[in-house]
Amino acid sequence: MSRFWSPVVHSLIPYVAGEQPAMSDIAKLNTNENPYGPSPLALEAISKAVSDTLRLYPDPTARGLRAAIAASYGLDKDEVFIGNGSDEVLAHTFQALLNHEEPLLFPDITYSFYPTYCRLYGIEFREVALDARMRVRVADYRQSCGAIILPNPNAPTGIGLPIADIETLVREHPEQVVVIDEAYVDFGGESAIPLVRKYRNLLVVQTFSKSRGLAGLRVGFAVGQRPLIEALERVKDSFNSYPIDRLTLAGAIAAWEDRDWFERHRALVIATRGRLGIALQALGFVVLPSSANFVFARHASKPGADLAAELRSRGVLIRRFSGARISDFLRISIGTDAECDRLLAALDDILR
Amino acid sequence: MSRFWSPVVHSLIPYVAGEQPAMSDIAKLNTNENPYGPSPLALEAISKAVSDTLRLYPDPTARGLRAAIAASYGLDKDEVFIGNGSDEVLAHTFQALLNHEEPLLFPDITYSFYPTYCRLYGIEFREVALDARMRVRVADYRQSCGAIILPNPNAPTGIGLPIADIETLVREHPEQVVVIDEAYVDFGGESAIPLVRKYRNLLVVQTFSKSRGLAGLRVGFAVGQRPLIEALERVKDSFNSYPIDRLTLAGAIAAWEDRDWFERHRALVIATRGRLGIALQALGFVVLPSSANFVFARHASKPGADLAAELRSRGVLIRRFSGARISDFLRISIGTDAECDRLLAALDDILR
Repeated sequence: MSRFWSPVVHSLIPYVAGEQPAMSDIAKLNTNENPYGPSPLALEAISKAVSDTLRLYPDPTARGLRAAIAASYGLDKDEVFIGNGSDEVLAHTFQALLNHEEPLLFPDITYSFYPTYCRLYGIEFREVALDARMRVRVADYRQSCGAIILPNPNAPTGIGLPIADIETLVREHPEQVVVIDEAYVDFGGESAIPLVRKYRNLLVVQTFSKSRGLAGLRVGFAVGQRPLIEALERVKDSFNSYPIDRLTLAGAIAAWEDRDWFERHRALVIATRGRLGIALQALGFVVLPSSANFVFARHASKPGADLAAELRSRGVLIRRFSGARISDFLRISIGTDAECDRLLAALDDILR
Repeated sequence: MSRFWSPVVHSLIPYVAGEQPAMSDIAKLNTNENPYGPSPLALEAISKAVSDTLRLYPDPTARGLRAAIAASYGLDKDEVFIGNGSDEVLAHTFQALLNHEEPLLFPDITYSFYPTYCRLYGIEFREVALDARMRVRVADYRQSCGAIILPNPNAPTGIGLPIADIETLVREHPEQVVVIDEAYVDFGGESAIPLVRKYRNLLVVQTFSKSRGLAGLRVGFAVGQRPLIEALERVKDSFNSYPIDRLTLAGAIAAWEDRDWFERHRALVIATRGRLGIALQALGFVVLPSSANFVFARHASKPGADLAAELRSRGVLIRRFSGARISDFLRISIGTDAECDRLLAALDDILR
């Protein structure tokens, strides 16, 4: 506590990110990174950009990257917003679009950064409970609110909503912004981006950290009609003129354009996820149906905290959350087959 | 205007950054970039970091870079905060430390991002007029206030304050945070970082964009005692867990440690600045005494807007601001000797 702090600082509850350990020889299945990435073409483009031109500021509008993303969806580049990771995109979104008189709605079990953003920007929020099967029910959002944000697939459950349900949600709230956070959508979910043309209240957020294997580069984006994107630009230009550096711009464009790499490696993750889910069930786990690059699973008898500690002592890192209903679950990122085998061997050893 | 916007968005007046033109064959003297940078050791370190490890998130705490900076000043790494450019450091500083019941003070002619940040975070501010010679007078800040922020050297004037004046300001406001924004300090100013040990209300902000020649990489930092840094960390961890990417961390550490490159190239900029100032005076300019990597100069008779337009048509970009008292001034970044010669030749042609 310090009298020098602005009042808001006292009430913040910062987000706690998954550990980035210095240890080597571990199976790092705790922060949903891509085991394969990134595209060699992205690395090549970055290497070419490592030059004296780093003395110059980057393009403050990230024009080339916006154009590349927009072209994939038949949109205009001015309908795309770029940020320093999708967390920055989300932060600007909370400040620019989600602060209204009535509360913001999001699931009670979801990305735990959402309530943190709300405290940072003084946004009232109301959590909507997942159903008994840990699913989002769109009907439960039929209530008075200022805006809605929802990950699809949800995190940390990994459960995806059909696009028809997303469209219902967007259509039923024409006066509210509905943000769909698609960090994990490329692993089996259905993107809402094709709905952007039709609904002016829809904003879709994605990231290069998972399906493009570029968590270490920091780039995310939002897609929406012009008035929503303009709000994000106004906040961004009141915060940091140049959030995306030259190397990131070069790498992200090349990664986006390497569709072949993207398709092949997300298919590998999906295949390993299927195999891992079956093996976990054989070990006595309840595994939620995942459309993401992780599975969310609890053992029928062994507490989650014990499992996490014993896995860690065997060099396997997974993530655990402490909230009600989920404290016995492990969130296990999909690694390579070898990493998943190491996890399974460790679990077998712990549970035998 | 959109009914989907949070109320704050309607009142924002975004900062307008200097142009980053696609044109080639120009003398780009408009955004205070370093004509020489960056250190070859920084480029080498970045190149080594371009690898598959980009699939992994970066260290969220930027520990290695904080340690490198702290070591230079005999400080602890926990007394250093890193941001995605000093603009992000400043944004977090405004939100975390400068929002109080009484208004924030800053000069009426200064970095024009300050009032933009105030609008973004709802901070009351009061501008303190520079004196007739465009200087900050510390005595003018002897008034009731919530906090103070001051660039030293000031921008866009380039005029530096002696460290004794900075210390007076910090000592006279023991209950207020005093932020010294040292973006340009390495070109002849005196840093206040040595005062951090003594004053718990002092925060000093610097950047890698100017004297380290890394505007294209985006990295800045703040130095202060632990409670001030903790406030910044709380805001950062409520905004974006991983603002600094892996390549930036690698490049910034190497750039920081290459003292030899740093000393040689800032000396070159200072030498060219001296020569340019004399030549501008010979052409009929009034040139303010600069301690920065730019000069702020107005012609005795020719309006600034005309000069800027005519320079542009000759492929020379400089920056001009529209505020009272400064609209006839040109802010000219110090380029290479060749770039400055091109500017001088163009001016000679325009003014003959």
